[in-house]
Amino acid sequence: MSVLPQSVEKVIDEFSKLPGVGPKTAARMTYHYLRSPNRDAKKLSEALEDMDANVSFCKKCFNVSDKKVCDICSSPLRKQTKICIVEEPLDVVAFENSAVYDGFYFVLGGVISPAEGIGAEDLRFDDLKKRIKELLNNLEDEKLEIIVATNPNLEGEATASYINDIFEKEVKEGTIVISRLAMGLPTGADLEYADRLTLKRALEGRRSI
Amino acid sequence: MSVLPQSVEKVIDEFSKLPGVGPKTAARMTYHYLRSPNRDAKKLSEALEDMDANVSFCKKCFNVSDKKVCDICSSPLRKQTKICIVEEPLDVVAFENSAVYDGFYFVLGGVISPAEGIGAEDLRFDDLKKRIKELLNNLEDEKLEIIVATNPNLEGEATASYINDIFEKEVKEGTIVISRLAMGLPTGADLEYADRLTLKRALEGRRSI
Repeated sequence: MSVLPQSVEKVIDEFSKLPGVGPKTAARMTYHYLRSPNRDAKKLSEALEDMDANVSFCKKCFNVSDKKVCDICSSPLRKQTKICIVEEPLDVVAFENSAVYDGFYFVLGGVISPAEGIGAEDLRFDDLKKRIKELLNNLEDEKLEIIVATNPNLEGEATASYINDIFEKEVKEGTIVISRLAMGLPTGADLEYADRLTLKRALEGRRSI
Repeated sequence: MSVLPQSVEKVIDEFSKLPGVGPKTAARMTYHYLRSPNRDAKKLSEALEDMDANVSFCKKCFNVSDKKVCDICSSPLRKQTKICIVEEPLDVVAFENSAVYDGFYFVLGGVISPAEGIGAEDLRFDDLKKRIKELLNNLEDEKLEIIVATNPNLEGEATASYINDIFEKEVKEGTIVISRLAMGLPTGADLEYADRLTLKRALEGRRSI
């Protein structure tokens, strides 16, 4: 005689697969849906099914999209000379929400992390080379700028320098320029609490005013 | 031009309704399902739909169940003289997993909490009275024991004393005995770190050895 109906156990099991969600949290989430008077379980179920059926990855930038080529990659308004390499689709959302960038994106799908057993072969470097080649073919005299926007940590740095190595030849030939997002103090930060590395980078990157 | 496909936004919205889950966490959860190679989104969708269609509340104890009357309430092996009042279905799971209790349960659906605007009328006190009456009718000479197992905090205490008031007459008549779970030091606790109230309750409830 089990205490919980099997279908409830199943939902708890599925929620437990989420990163950082243990069985207790999964149970709490499940009970929220059991208690919900608005049939939220049904709504979430339908939303997930719709997403599962209709969403995959843009074949150019690998951001999530319900089209084969996403709106950004197919937009004629985007600068054809800039491509920003990010780790995850949510990074694209962050850029787009701040409306500070007008080029293309490429979603790597993570970073090189020996500690987590993620090597270069697990990321989309082959697709990246293909996409860069395609962009270069469309350009005439202009240079292509690759902006590496991996996170400012050890893995992000390692991945950035791996990307640098891949396109070493094109950089030497002068067809590609590779840049990295600036590091320094974030807006509103308190200098007193800044960590050593942030201060070091902020000093290194200082600009005349 | 929206960055995310609408069906992805919808899943994020639905996850955001979970207590303690903000839009960022909801987005992370959604992206887990987008990335999952095992079609976890589909599995969760199906599990939720199944739960939504098949699970409701036992009409006797109001625990979640896929039957009208749950296995515990319909079991002839359960002591007919004991009913344990808990806040949530998960509390029943906790008791059943520890196999320390052999009576019935009643799930109140929360506790009285003026701070959160939850009054007695929002909880299942009418159903509780009905259930207690039913149990009393089935008993002959024996007393019915109500074990109040609300959490040991302000709201839990207030709810316990409200329950005490409801059955004041029956307690005086001697047909009902009301008890409360013991408070004190939990197993494995370090006395040094125990809070004042826990120590106070542990002293008050001390037993000769």
